[in-house]
Amino acid sequence: MNVDPREMANAIRALSMDAVQKANSGHPGMPMGMADVATVLFSKYLAFDPRRPDWPDRDRFVLSAGHGSMLLYSLLYLTGYADMTIDELKSFRQFGSRTAGHPEYGHAAGVETTTGPLGQGLGNAVGMALAERILNARFGDTVVDHFTYVIAGDGCLMEGISHEAASLAGHLKLGKLVVLFDDNSISIDGSVDLTCSDNQMARFAAHGWHVLDCDGHDHKAVADAIEAARNEPRPSLIACKTIIGYGAPNKQGTAATHGAPLGDEEIQAAREKLGWPSAPFEVPDDVLDAWRLVGARGASRSAAWDVRLAEIDQDRHETFKRIMSGRLPDGWEAGIEAHIAKLLQDKPNVATRKASQMAIEALQPALPEMVGGSADLTGSNLTRTGTMTAVTPGDFAGSYIYYGVREHGMAAAMNGMALHGGVIPYGGTFLVFSDYCRPSIRLSALMGQRVIYVMTHDSIGLGEDGPTHQPVEHLAALRAIPNVRVFRPADAVETAECWRLALSHDSGPSVLALSRQGTPQVRAEAKDLSARGGYILKEAAGEAKVTLIATGTEVALALAARKQLQADNIPTAVVSMPCREIFDAQDEDYRNQTLRPGTVRIAVEAASPFGWERYVGENGGFVGMTGFGASAPAEQLYEHFGITPAAIAEAAKGRLG
Amino acid sequence: MNVDPREMANAIRALSMDAVQKANSGHPGMPMGMADVATVLFSKYLAFDPRRPDWPDRDRFVLSAGHGSMLLYSLLYLTGYADMTIDELKSFRQFGSRTAGHPEYGHAAGVETTTGPLGQGLGNAVGMALAERILNARFGDTVVDHFTYVIAGDGCLMEGISHEAASLAGHLKLGKLVVLFDDNSISIDGSVDLTCSDNQMARFAAHGWHVLDCDGHDHKAVADAIEAARNEPRPSLIACKTIIGYGAPNKQGTAATHGAPLGDEEIQAAREKLGWPSAPFEVPDDVLDAWRLVGARGASRSAAWDVRLAEIDQDRHETFKRIMSGRLPDGWEAGIEAHIAKLLQDKPNVATRKASQMAIEALQPALPEMVGGSADLTGSNLTRTGTMTAVTPGDFAGSYIYYGVREHGMAAAMNGMALHGGVIPYGGTFLVFSDYCRPSIRLSALMGQRVIYVMTHDSIGLGEDGPTHQPVEHLAALRAIPNVRVFRPADAVETAECWRLALSHDSGPSVLALSRQGTPQVRAEAKDLSARGGYILKEAAGEAKVTLIATGTEVALALAARKQLQADNIPTAVVSMPCREIFDAQDEDYRNQTLRPGTVRIAVEAASPFGWERYVGENGGFVGMTGFGASAPAEQLYEHFGITPAAIAEAAKGRLG
Repeated sequence: MNVDPREMANAIRALSMDAVQKANSGHPGMPMGMADVATVLFSKYLAFDPRRPDWPDRDRFVLSAGHGSMLLYSLLYLTGYADMTIDELKSFRQFGSRTAGHPEYGHAAGVETTTGPLGQGLGNAVGMALAERILNARFGDTVVDHFTYVIAGDGCLMEGISHEAASLAGHLKLGKLVVLFDDNSISIDGSVDLTCSDNQMARFAAHGWHVLDCDGHDHKAVADAIEAARNEPRPSLIACKTIIGYGAPNKQGTAATHGAPLGDEEIQAAREKLGWPSAPFEVPDDVLDAWRLVGARGASRSAAWDVRLAEIDQDRHETFKRIMSGRLPDGWEAGIEAHIAKLLQDKPNVATRKASQMAIEALQPALPEMVGGSADLTGSNLTRTGTMTAVTPGDFAGSYIYYGVREHGMAAAMNGMALHGGVIPYGGTFLVFSDYCRPSIRLSALMGQRVIYVMTHDSIGLGEDGPTHQPVEHLAALRAIPNVRVFRPADAVETAECWRLALSHDSGPSVLALSRQGTPQVRAEAKDLSARGGYILKEAAGEAKVTLIATGTEVALALAARKQLQADNIPTAVVSMPCREIFDAQDEDYRNQTLRPGTVRIAVEAASPFGWERYVGENGGFVGMTGFGASAPAEQLYEHFGITPAAIAEAAKGRLG
Repeated sequence: MNVDPREMANAIRALSMDAVQKANSGHPGMPMGMADVATVLFSKYLAFDPRRPDWPDRDRFVLSAGHGSMLLYSLLYLTGYADMTIDELKSFRQFGSRTAGHPEYGHAAGVETTTGPLGQGLGNAVGMALAERILNARFGDTVVDHFTYVIAGDGCLMEGISHEAASLAGHLKLGKLVVLFDDNSISIDGSVDLTCSDNQMARFAAHGWHVLDCDGHDHKAVADAIEAARNEPRPSLIACKTIIGYGAPNKQGTAATHGAPLGDEEIQAAREKLGWPSAPFEVPDDVLDAWRLVGARGASRSAAWDVRLAEIDQDRHETFKRIMSGRLPDGWEAGIEAHIAKLLQDKPNVATRKASQMAIEALQPALPEMVGGSADLTGSNLTRTGTMTAVTPGDFAGSYIYYGVREHGMAAAMNGMALHGGVIPYGGTFLVFSDYCRPSIRLSALMGQRVIYVMTHDSIGLGEDGPTHQPVEHLAALRAIPNVRVFRPADAVETAECWRLALSHDSGPSVLALSRQGTPQVRAEAKDLSARGGYILKEAAGEAKVTLIATGTEVALALAARKQLQADNIPTAVVSMPCREIFDAQDEDYRNQTLRPGTVRIAVEAASPFGWERYVGENGGFVGMTGFGASAPAEQLYEHFGITPAAIAEAAKGRLG
């Protein structure tokens, strides 16, 4: 290559400032500041093959500072990703383009994750690096052995999630994780001095990281730092001292370059300063060739990997291909079906969190890709089974992660694990703490990732821990997120069915809301009824006048209320609704046959009424919570808040007139 | 005092283990482990007066590790808070007691904040310490000069919010903040080694804190450490090496003491080991007397403060008393009323975020207690006015906080500021990032605190930044939280009215959801119509057949749709609904007169339909979003997602048949 690498970096700068200018919005500062670092990384170190973006052993590159999306789009174009054309760059931030304002997973090959909400990419990268090590332990160095590189900014590092992510990575000794910190001392409000006095290097060192710094515009220094990072058993943070908007002579080094076009005049001045005479969106042939050569080199690396993969034994080869494709194995449901058959015989009265553990036990033998964990509530969430071994620092042979008190870090890592592929992550916390990981749950949904959230202690039924621990609004708040399936099973059978549904749903996350307290088995049939989201669990004796629609532990209460109503000659049906999202997707006939608009309808859920009008109509009723809970034994709370069979029956009678 | 302070600590241990045993649930480990530290703090340093729990210049004590609630309840009983009787301790975690599983603000005097969700107390404490310094700058050392002490555990320090809180406190040099870290090396899942390898002292040092450690069972060492911390200009972290469950001979030092009763046998063994022969809930007279003496000492300190307060000039004295009471001054509304009058003349077409800034400008002169800020989006949230000066490290004379990219830390700090009193905090971020601070918003609501969240960029109307930045489910998710008022004003007039409502609402938080994009003024009347939550903005010409119910920037679209419908001889009314929670609190007549159940009703909001069935009925319609947004200019997005006057009119016509 006889093109000056600084010219290669200038290509990124020019494309970035031009695209932002054309879009008349966007963030030129970061791409211009980090162009040198990215050039060194992509041209010398990153293992990738633009013609095979899904090569499993590629290095992962995560742009955690997602507002700098033009850095990534420029690199994808320059290195020759087929779908990232110059026209796409010209359509930056326009409707239907692959070049959204922030990188969107699935819009363009080479975008490994959706970033923009700060700190999330760093959290994802920890999960990717963790998945890589887990698969490495299973398949060996010849099949899985790659780095995860991250570019993160000051904003990422100020977010709380960066703490959880960094602390977890340091603890687990994820040595193949390398974070390139864009240390430009600027955030939106101005100089970082205005808001932050952290010594980021000392901080990461305190998390057990290898830390080093370099001049982010000195290619040799950047290369030396990356080299050192690659040879470290600890994760590495490289603080790259950069100038935001590097090359824009009047604006560089200031917040003015962060989130607005530079303006034609400043762009012209930057062209002069950088010695970049080409017209907007034009890259000189020699520079483009040099970049395309970088991209082309990946082909031989990925081909060599194919050879190595072919050398491992057939079974493991097949398993590897299967798990990386995300496809579940033939016959994977046999275990859970046998489990359900047994439940129908045994009729256990168990908490649904316990039922969840039983379901995991039944599923896991067929699904080695399941990787569980909990945010320091293993014994409460019941996410670990007897046969699972734990991942420990530097030893990744296990399939269970002790995530620590890091709900947000756990969720972001699970997104990264799912994106990496080869594992299906599930992780537990209390339902009330879904709030702590909500930004990551949203991204699971937006990216359509199969991440399973095991959220126990799902109502006032947790009792004495009181309102800080009692979810009230969380079911509604999670149901409101597009593309999230919220399951609240009524008993052990439904819990097993919901686990099956969650695992087979590969285009979005699932939340399992599970009880702390025991609940009787309400299902007597083997049919996979949860698969319709809601169904008539118990038909009315006589023509139904009342329909009780309940979820979770309240289904048993609805059944008891039905008994009272039937005793009063009021024919009553009970609908169990373990998943509203799936129910909503059924055809109208089925929904009407189930909900029976002509009857008096009462929804029963020990949670906020918010959103239940949809199912009970304007004259329907709701038995549940109206405000926050309280600290007391569970039975007393149900009594106090009027969530009892008698109250349900009263609500129905009151509406019958 | 000739009682051995170790006996005083044992009183805490005994009460804690006995109360947990009697409740048959709870967390004895932490109170037993931290009893010595707490004894030193309360007996030697904490400035408090049990007979005057609201003494404004008391030191604040925050039990961030809220599961150790019996530590706090024991201390309140022992030091003589009147409402914390021995019977309350015996009713620990029972319905209606003051002794909830986790400390609940408002349940008992001396509980400064609700804790339990880990890390929140630390975040609150940063806000308390910040409020203290801001008031100190205004009223001087003689009136406001106290410490904020925190007990935090490993769990608190693993949470991301601890990073944001610690980083902010270190940056601002909140030297009167002292954190006592219960460094017991145990979390729920077992030894902290299992999950965390952080060097907490090095980490806090990296945040600019003064750090030191001590043996948490050596009273002299604890005292020396607190002494050193009090003399420091930086915030201090004292790592107190403790043994969890100290005194329980077979279980101490293990996770077994964390969250379950010790059992009668172990409690008996602990009594022997500690040399504490008293029966459960009995404290020997000499020990109780010693503790009560500690409590009684506070009276002279608080009385001396009264003398000092009386010495400042009358105006400042009055102002201090007023702002600490939370009462707004007579005539405070004059400025905003004049502003509204001007708006009705000028009819500006502005973004509601801009309208919010104008409202703040109109309100602030009368309300010096307003303390604003933003999580690094000052220029976007428009939370700062020209006359506000910023708080900077060590200089607290300003009224504007640059919170940095710390949404969660900001929200938790604002809770602490509100709890401290004397300031009314408001802070900005993008509405989509309400997810990042949701756990703290929930606590604002649970504690009934007047915290004002200024959440701009409230829909796809933000345009090119794309779906990661476009809230869709957030209005629903916030409305689902009990006791939160979500305001989404339609224009500058409503924005001013909503700001007024938010400020006058002193029993819970308010969220102002504000647009990035400009929107026409829709209101022509001066009447305070937002005060009813929803109202008929434009009556139908003729007997209404259609009612359009809209919020925020979609009100203008509904008005345009009305025009089309009226042109087609379909009498249509438009309801503006800036605050659903207030509307829901109106009487049924008013609600029915406004919503008109007989008409075809269409809700219009550029957000999730979740929860709108309540207002439009089963046959009503909804024009808004059904999934995530996209990256493109705002007008194109409204067109693409079908949120247009034509689509609204079509939806109405379709339902008229």
